Amino acid sequence: MKNIDSIPKATIERLPLYYRCLDKLLTFENIEVISSKELGGRLGIPSTQVRKDLSYYGEFGRRGVGYDVHDLKKSIGKILGVNKTWPAVLIGAGNLGRALVNYEGFEKMGLKITNVLDVDLDKIGNRIGPITVESMKDLDKVVEEGNINLGIITVPASAAQEVADKLVRAGIKAIWNFAPTRIVVPDEIVVRNEDLAVGIVSLIYHLSWQDKLDA
Amino acid sequence: MKNIDSIPKATIERLPLYYRCLDKLLTFENIEVISSKELGGRLGIPSTQVRKDLSYYGEFGRRGVGYDVHDLKKSIGKILGVNKTWPAVLIGAGNLGRALVNYEGFEKMGLKITNVLDVDLDKIGNRIGPITVESMKDLDKVVEEGNINLGIITVPASAAQEVADKLVRAGIKAIWNFAPTRIVVPDEIVVRNEDLAVGIVSLIYHLSWQDKLDA
Repeated sequence: MKNIDSIPKATIERLPLYYRCLDKLLTFENIEVISSKELGGRLGIPSTQVRKDLSYYGEFGRRGVGYDVHDLKKSIGKILGVNKTWPAVLIGAGNLGRALVNYEGFEKMGLKITNVLDVDLDKIGNRIGPITVESMKDLDKVVEEGNINLGIITVPASAAQEVADKLVRAGIKAIWNFAPTRIVVPDEIVVRNEDLAVGIVSLIYHLSWQDKLDA
Repeated sequence: MKNIDSIPKATIERLPLYYRCLDKLLTFENIEVISSKELGGRLGIPSTQVRKDLSYYGEFGRRGVGYDVHDLKKSIGKILGVNKTWPAVLIGAGNLGRALVNYEGFEKMGLKITNVLDVDLDKIGNRIGPITVESMKDLDKVVEEGNINLGIITVPASAAQEVADKLVRAGIKAIWNFAPTRIVVPDEIVVRNEDLAVGIVSLIYHLSWQDKLDA
């Protein structure tokens, strides 16, 4: 396997797509072997790129036969680290925070939101599923006792940077930011800024072209 | 411009990434000219791919100079159709539905959730921001009167297919599905299945490797 730093970011971003696609093949379609062309075709990725992406991590599949879906899913799962459970603290017990705590799809990716914190006295003590909302003042204790490396931000944009600073000081190593603003953190902290609006654009693109073709 | 059907799906999926990146360059960084290498570098996409993607839609930028960020954003916005406003009906007034209605980032992508429907009598009549939750029984009327082409599903997985069927019968042309299940629709309907879990995987990947390197 190559040095992790030499693997292109775009390759790393595609691994979860492969993983989900393989998961769907097994769960919904009962497909057990797939070629790089078929796998790529389902994702809009050329087969040469599929093979190149996987080659960074070892040798998978058999020439002329394809990949064993179960084996490849397991291998990529290990590469991604989703075969383990990663506890996370979520900051901001609003609608989006509640929705994420109740979201059914995180478990298969290894994510477990174990704690929810807020500054709002009206929210502290409320329950979200199995979790009781705690005070933001308890952040350091929560992170240390839970051995938590992952923080999720679902506060308004105006509060996001302050929350990010507190997460970093508490020892968090990776931040998933849902607030629609940029946050600045030290280089060694990994941040993913989630923009829910990205998903709509391909739909609007299609609608827009239907309109033009109908006109 | 080439026939829309001949443009690779992966190219279409990258256009919103370019659009958002250009938007950020203007809004946060005051950058007015950018090369395909710099643009690609920010997104983990090779410069050759950036130029190829854009070439499907015409000629942009000047050799040796780069792209005018404002012009390119405007052009891509037009291609994507986000320069117009697209009304949408959202089905499912739970936490995720409420979060989406209140989400600040949709407007710049042209999405406007105009109606929220639910079957739950306890939710019908409640307000979410400026919207009053209506009964699912009013779907056909809402879609027709609002001239709505876009439906958003935020109901539990078990109810998603039934809702999708109703949206199709009501005349919806594109569906954004947040329920963690597959929905089956006629070929002419465009569906995007949103999986919120995808975003976490690149973070877990990094955490996982930090663990291995520290070990």
